[in-house]
Amino acid sequence: MVTTTETSRIKGVLSPVVTPFDSQLRPDTKRLIRHCRWLLDQDVGLALFGTNSEANSLGLAEKRALLDSMVEAELPPARMMPGTGCSALTESVELTRHAVKAGCGGVLMLPPFYYKGVSDEGLYRNFSEIIQRVGDESLRIYLYHIPPVSQVAITLPLIERLIKAYPGTIAGVKDSSGIWDNTKTMLDLFQPHGFDVFAGSETYLLQTLRNGGAGCISATANVNPGAIARLARTWQEADAELQQQALDVVRSTFAKFPMIPALKTAIAEFSDDSEWAIVRPPLVELDAAQRPALVDAMRAIDFSMTNLKESVLR
Amino acid sequence: MVTTTETSRIKGVLSPVVTPFDSQLRPDTKRLIRHCRWLLDQDVGLALFGTNSEANSLGLAEKRALLDSMVEAELPPARMMPGTGCSALTESVELTRHAVKAGCGGVLMLPPFYYKGVSDEGLYRNFSEIIQRVGDESLRIYLYHIPPVSQVAITLPLIERLIKAYPGTIAGVKDSSGIWDNTKTMLDLFQPHGFDVFAGSETYLLQTLRNGGAGCISATANVNPGAIARLARTWQEADAELQQQALDVVRSTFAKFPMIPALKTAIAEFSDDSEWAIVRPPLVELDAAQRPALVDAMRAIDFSMTNLKESVLR
Repeated sequence: MVTTTETSRIKGVLSPVVTPFDSQLRPDTKRLIRHCRWLLDQDVGLALFGTNSEANSLGLAEKRALLDSMVEAELPPARMMPGTGCSALTESVELTRHAVKAGCGGVLMLPPFYYKGVSDEGLYRNFSEIIQRVGDESLRIYLYHIPPVSQVAITLPLIERLIKAYPGTIAGVKDSSGIWDNTKTMLDLFQPHGFDVFAGSETYLLQTLRNGGAGCISATANVNPGAIARLARTWQEADAELQQQALDVVRSTFAKFPMIPALKTAIAEFSDDSEWAIVRPPLVELDAAQRPALVDAMRAIDFSMTNLKESVLR
Repeated sequence: MVTTTETSRIKGVLSPVVTPFDSQLRPDTKRLIRHCRWLLDQDVGLALFGTNSEANSLGLAEKRALLDSMVEAELPPARMMPGTGCSALTESVELTRHAVKAGCGGVLMLPPFYYKGVSDEGLYRNFSEIIQRVGDESLRIYLYHIPPVSQVAITLPLIERLIKAYPGTIAGVKDSSGIWDNTKTMLDLFQPHGFDVFAGSETYLLQTLRNGGAGCISATANVNPGAIARLARTWQEADAELQQQALDVVRSTFAKFPMIPALKTAIAEFSDDSEWAIVRPPLVELDAAQRPALVDAMRAIDFSMTNLKESVLR
């Protein structure tokens, strides 16, 4: 459930929206808009340009153009949280400014991810420069902690320092560490001060909500949006644990495969649209053995994206 | 010594040229051109936009503009090997095309470095797409293997496959693994076929040259260019081991500090130009204890950049 509080904060479930490509590896705007509409219809917000969007395989100009297309298609910017953290400070500033001007509800910000072993002071300066250069009170930054991929962490002391320096602007975090203890610590330390903690997948959705958190931003929300959003809406009901278990079954099925190609293959399968399976290098599509294995695995758990095709054809 | 063979190949010593910034953190073209001239005067080629250039803290537009400025200043493109490997395929294509049009002697190409655990097949497709899209016979790609930073390796089977598919275009490698055995294996397997192996620092310069390699591309060539280039010219003379030892003393002195801020601090010190010490986030300058410690350490080994100031004032 994506709602906005009195302070216009994004809550609930968001999907790092997978980016479709055509046979020339160009982003396919029409397919992307259709997929976004399908997600929104099921109460899932749009974390465009996330890791699972292959965002770091897209250039700055491509990301700007895609965001413009989404807004022109009248998708609601208030439900968008595009990834705007680039390796280069100047590009992070430009893309963040663009997102703010478009009216996005927030931005999900990676730390600069090329140089390793950088200090908290250096990362603080990075975020601080971006905030000052963008210079807009409506900016809401969600810090993106994903050390398994970025290899650069957003530490607890860094978060504390940023919240103190930029209260309101530093709005929350997506914790993709995969370590529940870390998410729990963030919830305990920062959520009470209005800093919204999103779990990095639905695996910890119920635990996050029970501990006062804001929701989750999850790859598998691209394929299982309705059920994940339902738990976010109804987590205080009696069947919450059962719902969580059902989500876990789907998640673990996809987690047996390379995630991004698997998501795209599932969408290709259920929409009868084979081009959806295309990924950009350095990723590769599921191979001739993995594709039927994924389809079999989905069948084995009775997983289907029942309303996808009607949505696509709409 | 940077020379060109009958096939116009870059050889000898190159420096990943440090990028000066002004107080607003903008690239400072004038200082960069002066520094490049000082390096060229000492027989050191220009590996612009390397790791030590803070290249991945620069945006695509900034890199394009800097390269244009270098060419407008009549620095010789044949002695340039700019880094053009970006996280996004489309940006790698654009920057590589720009370098080829500028007449650069080669390009030093990182693999896409955001996604981790990617396959050789995915990396092959990345390089293959770039080569085909640039579509220029004069393109010379030097693969940039620097797993400690990129966290994405250029494996030996990948190199073999690329050489077979694109002979001539795949021109060589910079091995910044820091593992001599890996450099030696590259020298044994690929150098005899005209694939030029550059050591990732002068630490392995003499060994690389004795094994038929092309030279080195080294951070410390920013501060000690003359002596490194001299060994590359005179490695068959009797004092080669002594020269190598002297280079090692300087290298190990700088290696005690964060390398990029230390290089810039040394240049600031010897050119009486304190702005040279500025780095872009996420890096930070040497702190109040490190700065005098570096100066003391340089003094202790009688290290000086004697002709730098005259060059700067020229």
